Amino acid sequence: MSFDYRIADISQHEAGRHQIRLAEHEMPGLMSLRAEYGDSQPLAGARIAGSLHMTVQTAVLIETLTALGAEVRWASCNIFSTQDEAAAAVVVGPRGTPEDPQGVPVFAWKNETLEEYWWTASQIFAWPGVDEDPTKGANMILDDGADATMLVHKGVEFEAAGAVPSAQDSDPEEYHYVLATLRKSLQENPQRWTGIAKNLRGVTEETTTGVNRLYQFARDGKLLFPAINVNDSVTKSKFDNKYGVRHSLPDGIMRATDVLIGGKVSVVCGYGDVGKGAAEALRGQGSRVIITEIDPINALQAAMDGYQVARLEDVLETGDIFITTTGGKDIISAEAMQKMKNKAIVGNVGHFDNEVDIAGLAAIPGVQKVEIKPQVHEWVMPADGTRAEGHSIILLSEGRLLNLGNATGHPSFVMSSSFANQTIAQIELFAKTAPDYTGEDRYETDVYVLPKVLDEKVARLHLDALGARLTELSKEQADYLGVDVAGPYKPEHYRY
Amino acid sequence: MSFDYRIADISQHEAGRHQIRLAEHEMPGLMSLRAEYGDSQPLAGARIAGSLHMTVQTAVLIETLTALGAEVRWASCNIFSTQDEAAAAVVVGPRGTPEDPQGVPVFAWKNETLEEYWWTASQIFAWPGVDEDPTKGANMILDDGADATMLVHKGVEFEAAGAVPSAQDSDPEEYHYVLATLRKSLQENPQRWTGIAKNLRGVTEETTTGVNRLYQFARDGKLLFPAINVNDSVTKSKFDNKYGVRHSLPDGIMRATDVLIGGKVSVVCGYGDVGKGAAEALRGQGSRVIITEIDPINALQAAMDGYQVARLEDVLETGDIFITTTGGKDIISAEAMQKMKNKAIVGNVGHFDNEVDIAGLAAIPGVQKVEIKPQVHEWVMPADGTRAEGHSIILLSEGRLLNLGNATGHPSFVMSSSFANQTIAQIELFAKTAPDYTGEDRYETDVYVLPKVLDEKVARLHLDALGARLTELSKEQADYLGVDVAGPYKPEHYRY
Amino acid sequence: MSFDYRIADISQHEAGRHQIRLAEHEMPGLMSLRAEYGDSQPLAGARIAGSLHMTVQTAVLIETLTALGAEVRWASCNIFSTQDEAAAAVVVGPRGTPEDPQGVPVFAWKNETLEEYWWTASQIFAWPGVDEDPTKGANMILDDGADATMLVHKGVEFEAAGAVPSAQDSDPEEYHYVLATLRKSLQENPQRWTGIAKNLRGVTEETTTGVNRLYQFARDGKLLFPAINVNDSVTKSKFDNKYGVRHSLPDGIMRATDVLIGGKVSVVCGYGDVGKGAAEALRGQGSRVIITEIDPINALQAAMDGYQVARLEDVLETGDIFITTTGGKDIISAEAMQKMKNKAIVGNVGHFDNEVDIAGLAAIPGVQKVEIKPQVHEWVMPADGTRAEGHSIILLSEGRLLNLGNATGHPSFVMSSSFANQTIAQIELFAKTAPDYTGEDRYETDVYVLPKVLDEKVARLHLDALGARLTELSKEQADYLGVDVAGPYKPEHYRY
Amino acid sequence: MSFDYRIADISQHEAGRHQIRLAEHEMPGLMSLRAEYGDSQPLAGARIAGSLHMTVQTAVLIETLTALGAEVRWASCNIFSTQDEAAAAVVVGPRGTPEDPQGVPVFAWKNETLEEYWWTASQIFAWPGVDEDPTKGANMILDDGADATMLVHKGVEFEAAGAVPSAQDSDPEEYHYVLATLRKSLQENPQRWTGIAKNLRGVTEETTTGVNRLYQFARDGKLLFPAINVNDSVTKSKFDNKYGVRHSLPDGIMRATDVLIGGKVSVVCGYGDVGKGAAEALRGQGSRVIITEIDPINALQAAMDGYQVARLEDVLETGDIFITTTGGKDIISAEAMQKMKNKAIVGNVGHFDNEVDIAGLAAIPGVQKVEIKPQVHEWVMPADGTRAEGHSIILLSEGRLLNLGNATGHPSFVMSSSFANQTIAQIELFAKTAPDYTGEDRYETDVYVLPKVLDEKVARLHLDALGARLTELSKEQADYLGVDVAGPYKPEHYRY
Repeated sequence: MSFDYRIADISQHEAGRHQIRLAEHEMPGLMSLRAEYGDSQPLAGARIAGSLHMTVQTAVLIETLTALGAEVRWASCNIFSTQDEAAAAVVVGPRGTPEDPQGVPVFAWKNETLEEYWWTASQIFAWPGVDEDPTKGANMILDDGADATMLVHKGVEFEAAGAVPSAQDSDPEEYHYVLATLRKSLQENPQRWTGIAKNLRGVTEETTTGVNRLYQFARDGKLLFPAINVNDSVTKSKFDNKYGVRHSLPDGIMRATDVLIGGKVSVVCGYGDVGKGAAEALRGQGSRVIITEIDPINALQAAMDGYQVARLEDVLETGDIFITTTGGKDIISAEAMQKMKNKAIVGNVGHFDNEVDIAGLAAIPGVQKVEIKPQVHEWVMPADGTRAEGHSIILLSEGRLLNLGNATGHPSFVMSSSFANQTIAQIELFAKTAPDYTGEDRYETDVYVLPKVLDEKVARLHLDALGARLTELSKEQADYLGVDVAGPYKPEHYRY
Repeated sequence: MSFDYRIADISQHEAGRHQIRLAEHEMPGLMSLRAEYGDSQPLAGARIAGSLHMTVQTAVLIETLTALGAEVRWASCNIFSTQDEAAAAVVVGPRGTPEDPQGVPVFAWKNETLEEYWWTASQIFAWPGVDEDPTKGANMILDDGADATMLVHKGVEFEAAGAVPSAQDSDPEEYHYVLATLRKSLQENPQRWTGIAKNLRGVTEETTTGVNRLYQFARDGKLLFPAINVNDSVTKSKFDNKYGVRHSLPDGIMRATDVLIGGKVSVVCGYGDVGKGAAEALRGQGSRVIITEIDPINALQAAMDGYQVARLEDVLETGDIFITTTGGKDIISAEAMQKMKNKAIVGNVGHFDNEVDIAGLAAIPGVQKVEIKPQVHEWVMPADGTRAEGHSIILLSEGRLLNLGNATGHPSFVMSSSFANQTIAQIELFAKTAPDYTGEDRYETDVYVLPKVLDEKVARLHLDALGARLTELSKEQADYLGVDVAGPYKPEHYRY
Repeated sequence: MSFDYRIADISQHEAGRHQIRLAEHEMPGLMSLRAEYGDSQPLAGARIAGSLHMTVQTAVLIETLTALGAEVRWASCNIFSTQDEAAAAVVVGPRGTPEDPQGVPVFAWKNETLEEYWWTASQIFAWPGVDEDPTKGANMILDDGADATMLVHKGVEFEAAGAVPSAQDSDPEEYHYVLATLRKSLQENPQRWTGIAKNLRGVTEETTTGVNRLYQFARDGKLLFPAINVNDSVTKSKFDNKYGVRHSLPDGIMRATDVLIGGKVSVVCGYGDVGKGAAEALRGQGSRVIITEIDPINALQAAMDGYQVARLEDVLETGDIFITTTGGKDIISAEAMQKMKNKAIVGNVGHFDNEVDIAGLAAIPGVQKVEIKPQVHEWVMPADGTRAEGHSIILLSEGRLLNLGNATGHPSFVMSSSFANQTIAQIELFAKTAPDYTGEDRYETDVYVLPKVLDEKVARLHLDALGARLTELSKEQADYLGVDVAGPYKPEHYRY
Repeated sequence: MSFDYRIADISQHEAGRHQIRLAEHEMPGLMSLRAEYGDSQPLAGARIAGSLHMTVQTAVLIETLTALGAEVRWASCNIFSTQDEAAAAVVVGPRGTPEDPQGVPVFAWKNETLEEYWWTASQIFAWPGVDEDPTKGANMILDDGADATMLVHKGVEFEAAGAVPSAQDSDPEEYHYVLATLRKSLQENPQRWTGIAKNLRGVTEETTTGVNRLYQFARDGKLLFPAINVNDSVTKSKFDNKYGVRHSLPDGIMRATDVLIGGKVSVVCGYGDVGKGAAEALRGQGSRVIITEIDPINALQAAMDGYQVARLEDVLETGDIFITTTGGKDIISAEAMQKMKNKAIVGNVGHFDNEVDIAGLAAIPGVQKVEIKPQVHEWVMPADGTRAEGHSIILLSEGRLLNLGNATGHPSFVMSSSFANQTIAQIELFAKTAPDYTGEDRYETDVYVLPKVLDEKVARLHLDALGARLTELSKEQADYLGVDVAGPYKPEHYRY
């Protein structure tokens, strides 16, 4: 077998294979799907263009997809997140060698430039012969952040217009590279993306951001193919956010600093699922936790869970550790950071790095940034009216997600739940968009959440590994409740 | 002022007034509504037929409704749940005397017969002059379990048919009394309920059971007027169930028995909101908690929260305390109770008493029921193949809700949240069903949940009392999130 | 059998027997001792004068002592604490009838006068024939608070002096009755207590207060016989204080008030064992807990356990619930209570009622005391400079131990641990003070704590009932640690 | 200034200085002592020979000692534990340069040989001119593990005998190097250690192991000078063990593996202070924790704290993570590891690496050891009767302390408490062994624990940094309790 790929160093495949083997043990959801569907090959015929952090956990996902019959091409959805040894292992495959790779074409390496990034994104659609015959191209997208999906949509849009517009100064820097990529494509093949799009049966997307983009396409009538919103599966949103962060937040803080969490006052901005996980983790370490919230329902939950609910400005001099979890912006302002206790720790496990006003921090006249170690910086403040020069804060991961920057992100078990949703969504969507599929539940060009019974299935796949034994309803009990013995068990609005 | 009422003993009004005064302090939601709407009188013109446990907390609700301008008639929704001193205090009113009652007509006393119960239900619609002029009747229902609403619907149905059918042997005993009540009514006034129904603008209902009945009417095309489902407000379902039970479950166990909860093994059947509250309470007392679940998602939550998840049959000899929280039936069978440890405690905080198979228990040949004290019974088992005679279990509240039977139910603060939802729903529904209301959001004859922004409002009303200070979004932050500064803040599918 | 006794009502014996049977199941320590020592009868020949709250749990203790061969006479150590049905059941005995009591002479009833109290205390020494032949008297005391022991010591002292002094105005009221009792005795038999004392082999005492008295006697060279300090067994002090209060504090608050503990701010004064249990219980109910402490080590523990540590005066307006646990005095002053939030709850689970300055509260000009129900009083404050008249606090059990006053004290399981210590101490002391005992470890006239290996034995007796399986050291492992396979396992200074 | 030292690389001093600066902020105990005693210089005249892990935290300790007037020479007490940049920074000192070091002579580097180790130990006694004039030598030892103290004692012993014995085959390898070191010394100066010992006023020792050695010397009548047992200060033993491990155990597991702790079953062997901290940390991460114990009192505590108490052999197939905390040996046998779940994690935070039977593990025929990464090894088991080849366990830090091997040990704040005890002990011992000191509390040649009031002082020094405000007793309250307003507050047997 021979195929194109571009990674950092294929010789790292053995190290990667090692880690994959251990990760498989922690990803019972994916391994159970291999066992269940290995024979029936529900993804036979699927050609999946995948765009998702090229990590060890993703390697287990990719090899699950291929074990179920799919062909796959892969890029990372983030310029920093590739684990090079995982990429190498996926290219070589479990039974290949560097000289005779038997795996999957991967286009990903750690620390891509933005230009390289958009090139890799285009490569997952560059299936051999696709320019000549679009039906040889990808028929499924597996997406994280909807970059791959967006690229197709923009490609189609510009091909219809016959031209790619010039970038505006006000466009984000990244968009310049999107346009350049598509401009080059238009020159090479003026109907490439149009052909690709026609052949695509659908996309499964796992992030809030990506899902928002898809809903936007759908609202604007521009969505080109069906989409499954994997993000809002309970076993994705509630598990990833809450239980993933409960683990990876203290992991990040502990690796970054030498600061005892116990006895300290932690201020957690936001009490959504991420905030709930963060607060539980910090309390579990003996920290006193204070919550800030804008939503009165979440604020009331925090109070009922025994946390103090306060405004940030009132606790700047009380807190030792400040963590944002909101998905909003400017949650911690530069002014707030100036007023904090000396050596207060500031970090973000929410979403984008603008939860903490890094730009404002850097703009304080006289502020000094001292690197303690990679991803850990002390920002030393100038004198102001009330304090002498020299008090400082410790900023983790430059305001980006500290559980990724200072630790290794969510553990495999959590990703097993998210990725089992992705895999099941691929199976579901591929089957129910088949040309000959005539069921009433055929997926149309819209955005869907995964049926609850499949969400329940993902949960089911993870119980054995935890030694949890599920009770079965009798037929009589199920009738009494008005549900099927096999589920789903709850009304759609049930909140878990 | 003079009016009809029927209660146990009006002389208890002072004791009731006392308790109402303390309860007001614990019901900041209702008191805030009085402060906010006392001047504008949004319920002026509302004539509310109320059917809800006639307790001290309900007294605060009733007097909130009247403070907002409503006229009210009240019955209890349960034959056992009336607190007689609260009924007396409501009749007398805060400024009246037994000789000159200034309050509200109440038809409720502790330990009604079923015949009396349905008479009281009919009395809340018996507004003076209503038979002559239906527009003098109730225009709103506030319901718990939908008995009042069902009575109107059945009345209309039978008046249309011109006859009330005979009860069948298979009908529940209670239904016999419903039919008798309506049969008498048909003789007195063959169009009474038809007139009443036409005058009703809508109902607000707060229980799962009642809401299910309303959705059934709506699905069958039989619903006669708009309905607001108060039950599924977050500030009702998540708070009442979880935080209410967290308090009232240990309260009930402790009052009922002398058994140390700490160090014991508790088995909680079900990990929904009630189960989550129960498990937290028992763990908070140092008990080791085992969960049984039929829903894999809830089971996975239980495991991730650190509980063992097992099947009941595997832990019968391990558990010291068994609590059902499911809403299902036959959760703990008679056979299971026979296999339990000697002196195991069995109780229910779920829904109906059939969660525990009391009938099956009583049917065990040779079993003996010994009353330890009211609502606490030891069931002594006969010898069986493996054990000698004399091992026993302790059954609380005869399988009915033990937090009501062995303690005093949910505390006022929790009820404040539920009742603030009721009050706000009454205001909302009364305003937006007004004959001259032309807004697009006018309520039609369907079942609605309360708009999220009102759910948030209920939460907001309870924060001050807990010393919780809410953060306010800036306009810029709100725009970034795509929400309004004033809320609502979350998409409909958000799970809290 | 026929004997003297004085109780409230012997006809209550069946109700008492019932409760005793259930309590036996929760007192595995005592029941195990019956099983272990029932045949060998180590207390044969012991005549025990017992002075300890005459409750259901004490009934199980008494019947354990008799099952081990002892003869017993009993009084309560508190004028309020007798459960009359328990007293009746103990007199009648498990196999007797009211007409033919087969049990134990008891001199105790609920609500004794102080005069009666000291008469009952003297009755436990009034063994038949003792005046004629002191060797027919008690040879052991089992004491709670050391009242019985003190009575003997004072009796001997005054008999030596030949006269009982007059009470001074500055003496506590209670001491007047002690003197009167002894004055009467001196008239009846001028060498009664001298004879009794000579016949006594020793005392086992279980409270801090009682133990302090014994150490005082020992320091002053006045101790008349050996004493075992049961109070400082780990299985007494750490279990009773921490785990007992963890259960009985929320029990008391919940029974007394309708106030949701969750979400509220609780202030716990003191973070000793009682405070630790109280804080854990309140946190377990979702309350935010603030600790006040005078000892920096305990304060640091509280901080490291995640609690805010503050001064009372700084949190008077923050707290909703104030609980004293200190053993000190004037912990909550009248002034503090005046500054509290309206309807703040104040209660004591520490020691004496002077932890809360009730006298100062009552002395506030214009203050009003309103009884909400027995043991629950609202104290309504007059207007002061900052607040209008009418704000109030809710005081539980008039400042006395609220877990006793508003609930039923520690559960049986906790008392099983304390009473197993008592029983084992009686066996130990009775054996090793025998006239013919020549072991090196013979007890001399001093105060001893129970050997650690017996403390461990008490723990051991309670493990099975909790399903706990203990690991056994191998000989090699024990040698490595330098301990015996059978224990004791820890050095004396080990803190657990 | 110029002095001898031997470290890895002095050029790392800036990196070390940086870390010291941050650590100072987390070591308020030491910094407070600098503030309190900086002027009075209580250690002026003290020449301290220090033997303790040469880490960043120890650097803060060393510079605290010099700030209080002491002269210091330092070696590490472990061949692996030196942080080279800390050593460099201490040599250079806060105001020196590599060319002109102003700090302290240090003899320590990472990865010493045993021969080197004992050479460094001898260097801390090699004060300039000491061979000529022993009074120029060290007069104080600050020890960790008592190696320095032991070296002096052995030196004196052999000098008295006039010869150093030959090592026996049965002696530990390390002892060979001790003997060689002393043999060389004897040749150089036959009265060196005798002179040194005479000049030593005492030692302060902080570990269980070291303290046991000291008590052994004292019991055998061989102790040469007074010793303070710092290990048994509450603020050392209870804080270091419990709160240090609570932080560093999950830190170690998380860094070592990618395994989600939440939802997993953890088995903690031992429920002493270390076990309590470990269990709390794991539960705080959502793990279900099972305890094994040999001491029934600790077992009962575990049960009352809500943990399952089981025997290891019964939960081998249940546990996912096994942690030893006992101080004993062979807690987890090779046989046990063979029976564990596939990929179970095994680690030790107790004491020596023999808590896990590594030797036995390596001796299993056919077992394979695979290095996943440094300090993380997979041991792959051969087939046995019940399982096929290939199941494996993950062993952390080769059975040595995983919180040191896989993470960075206890955080600075915890070490601040331990080291404040050391510093205060040095001050106390130096003052009260002065030639002219005549107080009754002069330290004699025995082993002492630090007076409780100094233990309380250490706690006091750490409260401010946690925002904890201590309450002060009034004189009247103190009298009531029979304590001094300034403490100590508790009897010696109080257990905290």
